[in-house]
Amino acid sequence: MQTPIWPYITPGISDDLFERLPGIPMSKCEVRLLMIGHLRLRANSILWDIGAGTGTIPVETGLMCPNGRVVAIERDEDVAELIKINCQKFGVKNVEIIVGNAPECLETLKEAPDRICIEGGRSVKEILEFCWQRLAIGGRVIATANTLEGLYGISEGFAQLQVRNVEVVQSSVNRLEARGTRQTFAAVNPIFILSGEKLE
Amino acid sequence: MQTPIWPYITPGISDDLFERLPGIPMSKCEVRLLMIGHLRLRANSILWDIGAGTGTIPVETGLMCPNGRVVAIERDEDVAELIKINCQKFGVKNVEIIVGNAPECLETLKEAPDRICIEGGRSVKEILEFCWQRLAIGGRVIATANTLEGLYGISEGFAQLQVRNVEVVQSSVNRLEARGTRQTFAAVNPIFILSGEKLE
Amino acid sequence: MQTPIWPYITPGISDDLFERLPGIPMSKCEVRLLMIGHLRLRANSILWDIGAGTGTIPVETGLMCPNGRVVAIERDEDVAELIKINCQKFGVKNVEIIVGNAPECLETLKEAPDRICIEGGRSVKEILEFCWQRLAIGGRVIATANTLEGLYGISEGFAQLQVRNVEVVQSSVNRLEARGTRQTFAAVNPIFILSGEKLE
Amino acid sequence: MQTPIWPYITPGISDDLFERLPGIPMSKCEVRLLMIGHLRLRANSILWDIGAGTGTIPVETGLMCPNGRVVAIERDEDVAELIKINCQKFGVKNVEIIVGNAPECLETLKEAPDRICIEGGRSVKEILEFCWQRLAIGGRVIATANTLEGLYGISEGFAQLQVRNVEVVQSSVNRLEARGTRQTFAAVNPIFILSGEKLE
Repeated sequence: MQTPIWPYITPGISDDLFERLPGIPMSKCEVRLLMIGHLRLRANSILWDIGAGTGTIPVETGLMCPNGRVVAIERDEDVAELIKINCQKFGVKNVEIIVGNAPECLETLKEAPDRICIEGGRSVKEILEFCWQRLAIGGRVIATANTLEGLYGISEGFAQLQVRNVEVVQSSVNRLEARGTRQTFAAVNPIFILSGEKLE
Repeated sequence: MQTPIWPYITPGISDDLFERLPGIPMSKCEVRLLMIGHLRLRANSILWDIGAGTGTIPVETGLMCPNGRVVAIERDEDVAELIKINCQKFGVKNVEIIVGNAPECLETLKEAPDRICIEGGRSVKEILEFCWQRLAIGGRVIATANTLEGLYGISEGFAQLQVRNVEVVQSSVNRLEARGTRQTFAAVNPIFILSGEKLE
Repeated sequence: MQTPIWPYITPGISDDLFERLPGIPMSKCEVRLLMIGHLRLRANSILWDIGAGTGTIPVETGLMCPNGRVVAIERDEDVAELIKINCQKFGVKNVEIIVGNAPECLETLKEAPDRICIEGGRSVKEILEFCWQRLAIGGRVIATANTLEGLYGISEGFAQLQVRNVEVVQSSVNRLEARGTRQTFAAVNPIFILSGEKLE
Repeated sequence: MQTPIWPYITPGISDDLFERLPGIPMSKCEVRLLMIGHLRLRANSILWDIGAGTGTIPVETGLMCPNGRVVAIERDEDVAELIKINCQKFGVKNVEIIVGNAPECLETLKEAPDRICIEGGRSVKEILEFCWQRLAIGGRVIATANTLEGLYGISEGFAQLQVRNVEVVQSSVNRLEARGTRQTFAAVNPIFILSGEKLE
């Protein structure tokens, strides 16, 4: 599925194509590419995206899974509205936005996901535990951390739930960016991406 | 297009799924994701991949562009055979492998590419110049460098050819890797990825 | 204090000046500079270096603290011998090498250290706890980790012991290295360095 | 030489101890450590620091070379004043500050330096050429770049002047930083440090 604003089949939408709100985090293009790579989506994947923020993951995964569906969870109403605006901008129609706190707000969801992406949330371990029980066999979970506490929580959670084939990568990309008249090397802040599978 | 060995629609095939030859470079999964993201492929893209090495880019892009075609250029016969083996392993049928030196061996190619990926070659500037003339309007070029000379050559070449919307990123990913019984942070060697467009 | 082989007053001795043993880890020059920076040595510092490996920290700190003393702890006899050889090579005379397991082997040490450097050891938390009790008021501790478990252990240990002014940095240096006839960007594997103070 | 505000013999003064001016670049602690390491100072070194900015290198090297001298070149008067303030703050008395454009303003300097540090300046190649002629035999030059153009200019300049034992490192440090109530991994922007020697 392509869209006039992003007429490509590859992920990695330019950051500046997304609408933004001040202070709302956005997964940068390069980090998103790694996240999407680790999600290993199928065309009909059902993805839960917890702490969806600006909505870049719902937009990208919505476009990549035309026969699938994305459920974006976001606790803040204004941010949920931002996700909606971004989905509309990119013509994404298979994203359902739920305003609420995870994991409570996930309880009403009927359909089991086969992909889970945890980008934020008050208690990553609780969220992880709930999502894991609902995750389809053969499904995959990824979670991102930009703090030491987040990295610990996810790593411990993965171990307790016996997540299989765990991979941990730390994205640490530098970009040449225009600063005035000069092109300066600037670092994209590092993100840890943990991923794994639920086997039988 | 999916394939039994990689039944996913997202790029980022695990490194260990590829057949390898000792000493032949392979773009690591994380670097490949960035490269593919910067290629911004269309479903029917015609991609020239110069210095295709292990063939990871032909395999990934061949899978992502079912209506497109990839021309993989590789000067070494054994390496060309390796690319063929990897394409077969992943059931990729839209990759043409040409054994020869770029840019000479490109002269017989009739069809203009809309995407160019330069991963290696004796003279990056000559290759770039030739490819640029053949590149379709609106097309994109990316090139990778892991040396200072490569970075210079590509950057100067881009400037001389007036490549537009140039982006430079440096991938610098760390992975948690098993070393004996411990999980150690290991760095994937940094790669510069330069990309841009041919406008008008 | 300078020495014929390193006639400089600044730390950061070239890696290839040290004698090495296969398989024995060595803190690379760039990482060592960060470690020494975080140690914030005084001319008369008493430093305990636990898991001294190749001995680069004892050599550098021994040279920098002519009125101080370094106690290097290493459990392996051959490695302890390597430290000795390196100290001799650089003319360092204020390093005492103890072969043994930390923290047990530390019990006989009379003098309280004002600097502690934990580079390795079976149980980082036990070592940390023991060292902390012996550390002089106003003293500093640093510890390095190249695994997730190490990072956790040190971080938790620091929290439990109420280490003050904790700083965490991750060194992630790239070097241009000769590989055959080319100069390739190569990553020095990333190391986390945690440091902090004991305030009364 | 120690000073009440930095009573240590090791370099790596905390960033927040320096006075700053908005918009004036400062070499961060971790980058400074690498720079100082590559300078390989002697106790009596004569260092020219071109484009001294906030003055962190003059302060650190002034402290480390009590029998040496630092000449700090800065074209902006307000910035030169800032360097002076920082030198006073740390009790550094062996730094001479020259307000002017390099290389012209260097012509009046009588004494040949044995260490050169180029942190900025209008034309890095011109500066490099002038400094190189004045550099004592056996002396060392380092230069930093945070742009592609800077990296090129220095690298080409080094090649033309036949600088020996050239080393190129790219510092790419991540720090755990307090952002509100959380500790977030933040990247220090990457800097290239090129260094080499003048032999015979």
